[in-house]
Amino acid sequence: MKTRATAYPVWNRFQRAPDDLLSLREQLVRFFRKGVADGALQPGIRLPASRVLAQELGLSRITVSGAYEQLVAEGFLEARRGAGTYVAARRAEQAPRSSTAAPRERQRAPVSVRARRLAGVDSMSMARAAWPLTPGLPALDAFPYALWGRLEGRFWRRRPMPDLSYGDPQGFLPLREALAAYLGAARGVVCNARQIVIAPGAQAAISIATLALTDIGDRVWVENPGYDAAYRSLVLAGVAPVGIGVDAEGLDVDAGRQHAPDARLAMVSPSHQYPLGVTMSLARRLALLQWAKEADAFILEDDYDSEFRYECAPTPALKALDGDNRRVIYIGTLSKLLAPGLRLGFLVAPDDLIDALCAVRNGTDHRVPLPLQATAAEFIGNGYLGAHIRRSKALYAERRAALLSAIEAEGGGWLTVPTAATGLHLVSELHDCCDDQALAAAARTRQIGVMPLSRYFVDAARTERQGLLMGFGNTRSESMRGAIQTLCSLIETRSEC
Amino acid sequence: MKTRATAYPVWNRFQRAPDDLLSLREQLVRFFRKGVADGALQPGIRLPASRVLAQELGLSRITVSGAYEQLVAEGFLEARRGAGTYVAARRAEQAPRSSTAAPRERQRAPVSVRARRLAGVDSMSMARAAWPLTPGLPALDAFPYALWGRLEGRFWRRRPMPDLSYGDPQGFLPLREALAAYLGAARGVVCNARQIVIAPGAQAAISIATLALTDIGDRVWVENPGYDAAYRSLVLAGVAPVGIGVDAEGLDVDAGRQHAPDARLAMVSPSHQYPLGVTMSLARRLALLQWAKEADAFILEDDYDSEFRYECAPTPALKALDGDNRRVIYIGTLSKLLAPGLRLGFLVAPDDLIDALCAVRNGTDHRVPLPLQATAAEFIGNGYLGAHIRRSKALYAERRAALLSAIEAEGGGWLTVPTAATGLHLVSELHDCCDDQALAAAARTRQIGVMPLSRYFVDAARTERQGLLMGFGNTRSESMRGAIQTLCSLIETRSEC
Repeated sequence: MKTRATAYPVWNRFQRAPDDLLSLREQLVRFFRKGVADGALQPGIRLPASRVLAQELGLSRITVSGAYEQLVAEGFLEARRGAGTYVAARRAEQAPRSSTAAPRERQRAPVSVRARRLAGVDSMSMARAAWPLTPGLPALDAFPYALWGRLEGRFWRRRPMPDLSYGDPQGFLPLREALAAYLGAARGVVCNARQIVIAPGAQAAISIATLALTDIGDRVWVENPGYDAAYRSLVLAGVAPVGIGVDAEGLDVDAGRQHAPDARLAMVSPSHQYPLGVTMSLARRLALLQWAKEADAFILEDDYDSEFRYECAPTPALKALDGDNRRVIYIGTLSKLLAPGLRLGFLVAPDDLIDALCAVRNGTDHRVPLPLQATAAEFIGNGYLGAHIRRSKALYAERRAALLSAIEAEGGGWLTVPTAATGLHLVSELHDCCDDQALAAAARTRQIGVMPLSRYFVDAARTERQGLLMGFGNTRSESMRGAIQTLCSLIETRSEC
Repeated sequence: MKTRATAYPVWNRFQRAPDDLLSLREQLVRFFRKGVADGALQPGIRLPASRVLAQELGLSRITVSGAYEQLVAEGFLEARRGAGTYVAARRAEQAPRSSTAAPRERQRAPVSVRARRLAGVDSMSMARAAWPLTPGLPALDAFPYALWGRLEGRFWRRRPMPDLSYGDPQGFLPLREALAAYLGAARGVVCNARQIVIAPGAQAAISIATLALTDIGDRVWVENPGYDAAYRSLVLAGVAPVGIGVDAEGLDVDAGRQHAPDARLAMVSPSHQYPLGVTMSLARRLALLQWAKEADAFILEDDYDSEFRYECAPTPALKALDGDNRRVIYIGTLSKLLAPGLRLGFLVAPDDLIDALCAVRNGTDHRVPLPLQATAAEFIGNGYLGAHIRRSKALYAERRAALLSAIEAEGGGWLTVPTAATGLHLVSELHDCCDDQALAAAARTRQIGVMPLSRYFVDAARTERQGLLMGFGNTRSESMRGAIQTLCSLIETRSEC
């Protein structure tokens, strides 16, 4: 009996790809699978005997019969005893559409509304290169590579079997203990290991806290301008960020009470406002705590780089004022103290929230690799972090001074720096010379990593203030002058247009 | 003038804590901060001169004046030139409530609805100990500690500065390249590095894909019984999981079409259904792809341990059948191939979804530490992964055989294993002898890590099937008999009651 299959033998279209990673047998298996899946090989068709097909395709018989066997095991083919090999039958309602049918039009956008909202948030920071003046980076040239490698080597040498399991849902206990001791001494945050949850970065900790403390649609105060990555986390958590203005004293609590008195959460960076750099005044801190108490709301305190304060001792964390109200969730990170590539962050929360935070962390899979948690625990617990911070602070003070004097010498009146007391970046105001986003884009083509201030505004306020964020943490002092010269030449060119 | 402050000198309550980590000066600063915050020190109160206070408290004058200076810098105190030091004034509306006021009742639950829903999902797996028969663990005793440590040591020795920055939002390119080559050869998933996104585990990848592809309230098919961690991710993403039954051919696609034809996503484990262990038939695979095409839906294929198949070659991934429809997002992990503590997972998606997936990954902060990504890239790219899998497979075949024969020898008719062809665990049915959750809880007290089958059901079906998940990946062959004997003695005790 001559079948349609032998009249148009699909298998003759098989072509070997000699440089394919797969064996010939695997290539043949894949070819048949595709034929069955896209309907070119209809159920019931009889395939040539393996000897015949091997001859036709110039393959060994072992290759072909091996492929047939695998396809039978997978259910693509059926071997009928003594009667040859057939394409397996399927139930009628499961047959794929004929391959000639027009592809169906998409009825919905392929991507979710929330993902499309993120695309609307400028993603310039997504591929942050380590260029001169790129903000948000610590001195990667001063990272203690040898010491860290030695500590990690010790971890692997002791064959840490249980540590390579899923681990404690709250994070590695010795790391939490080391962080608790550090936070009490350095940030005035008196806590114990039981109140700490480890997360792969500050933003992850913000995600976890938001999911644990807000319902979908809840309003959340965010600083305006504010931390763009936190904003993205809030959008994904399904809450409504409400931009609240920032002045010289930090977040304007009265404006928050006016615009969104019922917010469930306030997201603030009191020790070093991101991006403007101001420190929240004591009056505002107390007012914020008071609002949170009255509104039954929580405060997420993002404390990302305030260990580095250059003209006086670091301001203690807002969390240190929280007392028995237990309204503040402190968000910390080692991204600025050590390196962002380690992905080590954490949060400190009131005891009665810890179970919910751990459940959420397990639900989002924001776990941190055990080898890094264990190495960080050694690093902090043995006092290396304190020593590294002291050394880094001296280095950043020098780099900051070099940047400020480069701006003074070369800034040509275009650039003014209102405050630069804390952290690893400063903001230079731009005097109506040109659009900061266009200027930053031009700077990127010259491999200068400044970021435009206006992109950190969440709404129409966006156009009000133009400026440039300049990171000095990862920029060598000797590069500052050249970078500022290049920037100013770009400003001059643009302001002439 | 005698003030109320000197009549009731709050500061006399200061007590030094000699074994505190903080200096005396810091302790004093913290004491005053607290006093201001809780209202014990009212605005306008004049503090004693530093010399006087030092005498009263038995501290050095330098300690006291240093503390005053810091408190002035922080805004807690005001120094009036020539007139002493005062508690700083605050605006009236910002004054904290009097400390004698009764604490305000909470108006709302402190924790979100979604976090409370998670607490309702049994969290037995949260602290998964590495005991005999604990499912979900590979052989931690066979992890290549020395080799991994050597590769990671190489990473640190080359002082990898740019790698310690934020890194590529899609994941480290050499790791994606190594994974693409591996997936083509091992799982029939033909893809390139551009289609891969790295995530800290399969569950994280599921979170990312769900947020990118579903809107809040969308319905999602989940296998019933199914992967509990994926269920938790879906709850947090604000979607509605719909449990669809599983039979010997895998997920019942017709039931899915009937109960939730409009679902946006189907979450399946076709190569080794979790937890039951069945392999999805070809007919069902094609039917599922067909539904996804018609419904304009996507399929998340969780392919977590199917490299380990004991009686024939591994079934290729569903993704291998996807072709031009581009309906399947493949979810992979190194948790079972290497170790969960590394937190290395990934997804493979159609090109046109990658931007949205990366934006979401950046929004949730599901980045993976660069040292581990770089080491994994070396490990896979140099062929060590293939060799490790071959060795592991022989080990798991031995452990599986030991478990099956222990069940046969000691199971005493209580335990039956319908299928155990793939992966690192099997499910033993329990013949109406007792409640599987109570039995598993009893087993935990004897440090046996079996999990109750009924907890993987998402609804009322929960009570229909009782069974035990038994992991053999991380259980030595010689421990199997003892563990099964203990289990059976627990069953006998309970069935007598």
